[in-house]
Amino acid sequence: MKKKITTLKEIAKQLNLSISTVSRALNDHPDISESTKEKVKRLANDLSYVPNIFAKGFRSHKSNIIGVIVPSITHYFTATILKGILDEAAIKGYRVIISESDNDISKQTEMLKTMMQFGVDGILMSLTKRTRNIENIIKTMDTVPLILFDKVSNKIPCTQIVINEEEAAFDAVEHLINIGKKRIAIIKESEYSYNSEKRYTGYLRALNEHNIAIDEKIILSVEDITLKQGRRMTNILLSLKNRPDAVFAITDSAAIGVVQALKKFKIKIPEDIAVVGFSNSIHSTIIEPMLTTIDQPGERIGSTAIKYLIEEIDNPNEFTGIKTVEIKSNLIIRDSTFSS
Amino acid sequence: MKKKITTLKEIAKQLNLSISTVSRALNDHPDISESTKEKVKRLANDLSYVPNIFAKGFRSHKSNIIGVIVPSITHYFTATILKGILDEAAIKGYRVIISESDNDISKQTEMLKTMMQFGVDGILMSLTKRTRNIENIIKTMDTVPLILFDKVSNKIPCTQIVINEEEAAFDAVEHLINIGKKRIAIIKESEYSYNSEKRYTGYLRALNEHNIAIDEKIILSVEDITLKQGRRMTNILLSLKNRPDAVFAITDSAAIGVVQALKKFKIKIPEDIAVVGFSNSIHSTIIEPMLTTIDQPGERIGSTAIKYLIEEIDNPNEFTGIKTVEIKSNLIIRDSTFSS
Repeated sequence: MKKKITTLKEIAKQLNLSISTVSRALNDHPDISESTKEKVKRLANDLSYVPNIFAKGFRSHKSNIIGVIVPSITHYFTATILKGILDEAAIKGYRVIISESDNDISKQTEMLKTMMQFGVDGILMSLTKRTRNIENIIKTMDTVPLILFDKVSNKIPCTQIVINEEEAAFDAVEHLINIGKKRIAIIKESEYSYNSEKRYTGYLRALNEHNIAIDEKIILSVEDITLKQGRRMTNILLSLKNRPDAVFAITDSAAIGVVQALKKFKIKIPEDIAVVGFSNSIHSTIIEPMLTTIDQPGERIGSTAIKYLIEEIDNPNEFTGIKTVEIKSNLIIRDSTFSS
Repeated sequence: MKKKITTLKEIAKQLNLSISTVSRALNDHPDISESTKEKVKRLANDLSYVPNIFAKGFRSHKSNIIGVIVPSITHYFTATILKGILDEAAIKGYRVIISESDNDISKQTEMLKTMMQFGVDGILMSLTKRTRNIENIIKTMDTVPLILFDKVSNKIPCTQIVINEEEAAFDAVEHLINIGKKRIAIIKESEYSYNSEKRYTGYLRALNEHNIAIDEKIILSVEDITLKQGRRMTNILLSLKNRPDAVFAITDSAAIGVVQALKKFKIKIPEDIAVVGFSNSIHSTIIEPMLTTIDQPGERIGSTAIKYLIEEIDNPNEFTGIKTVEIKSNLIIRDSTFSS
């Protein structure tokens, strides 16, 4: 086999097809028959054809690649969103490249540039913490469609896919009130984050609507909302004169830390202290008692985000301004709030 | 700001620096002072500079980007490897783009091509199941360095980063023998996979060395080595006339399924049946009793793989043939084999 670059034109010539037919066959276009696709793909493979998507410069035609930027790839909930994106991309014939910003703003900016260099057709992004300078992001949107998901910002005029964070937290806290709890602690993030703020707002609203006084002593904030911090905060709560009778942790990891700490001190769950988490991770079903939590439909967030993005890629001139799409989540009641 | 493409030359001219200095400043080269880097980056940003890494065609200079292809991004162990890759890449000044093959060979081939189009400096890959046609992979290696990790193949002449699978499994089974177990079941994968085969070999060797007869009835194979299958296989093992007194499941997920099923039938762990998993996932510490398992150093696999890759990128003509690098793993003894 020669080390010579094969072009679409060459394949088209050899098979006596138009270049456009060859191109569409390689991209699995529905208008092309299976037999033609097979014929084209076999020859393309024999000739070691690599589509040179950059040959005509940026954005001169579709690359069928979508870029995804997330704060942390190894985060469980993010992984479920990625799964939704990847599965839907496979159905729609798009390839996906993923990168992480590592919660670092300059890396986020760099990855946006990298994605642009690659000539992606569109970008899906979940923002890093402390994303204040949004100029770069808005600049990107001049060139390719961009959609935010999970960690969003209402300062960026684009489609944003989120779950009904506030309502979900409200439901969780109201459930605790309904089972007779009157002194409900919350463990949230100390730094501003879209999700933490919304969940906190839901917590406050539920207490207010049920005429339960807010007590700052049982509103705890941590920098990293982890299992370890959940344990540490529980120790603080247990040292209070007036202990809480329930804890709402805004992530499952932290909630599992709470459960572990309570068990260590032989405190009955849910009788003495009930616990609610957020996200329905696998862990929430492995811990005993199993955790009451909010089912965060990660896969659906991912598939919805990419569907909207493809819509915008296909109709570049239709979209203007901000649009928030809320995916509904559900409270899942398990043993940590319900004694059977 | 004009929509005009900014070049390195332009930046160099405005700052009265050489093009090479500007390029190295943008790539965080250690020889360039922090103040110069800052000056260059600020102007590059003001001028909306996007480095056009494709301007001179493929591989004409370094892109500082490494491509990673894995069977499944959302798999926990893979996530830890990715973390190792990403952290080390950040230290070495490389950007990383990640893609998944979804255990689909044609997707794996497609993603290899995509990475090549992107002009990555090197590729890190964990193979999909059933990767038999390795021609495409070897062809890729003509153009860029490639290193395999975790799911590897000794048919591909490149550096391969793995853990000492066989020895680790041997240690796990020997530990069961040492605590007095004589009838040790294994739950492994039915289809050929590098990891499963190595662990199975370790199991067989441990039994042989301790003169324990192999019994096919307690060697169970499943297509997907999941929690659910772990439960199902336990039901099969419990229905045997001659039950095992220990189970070695080749993944933590399956081992957790085993523990859950045993607990359902009120079988004492480890007295009646001991359980060992493999990989030291977070789950293994959340389940009760906590799981004895092999600590699979995912982050170290990732950081080692990228270190070797960068070595090969920097010294393109030195490497020839296959080289296997084994990362040592350790047995972690917990309550599922040790009653305190």
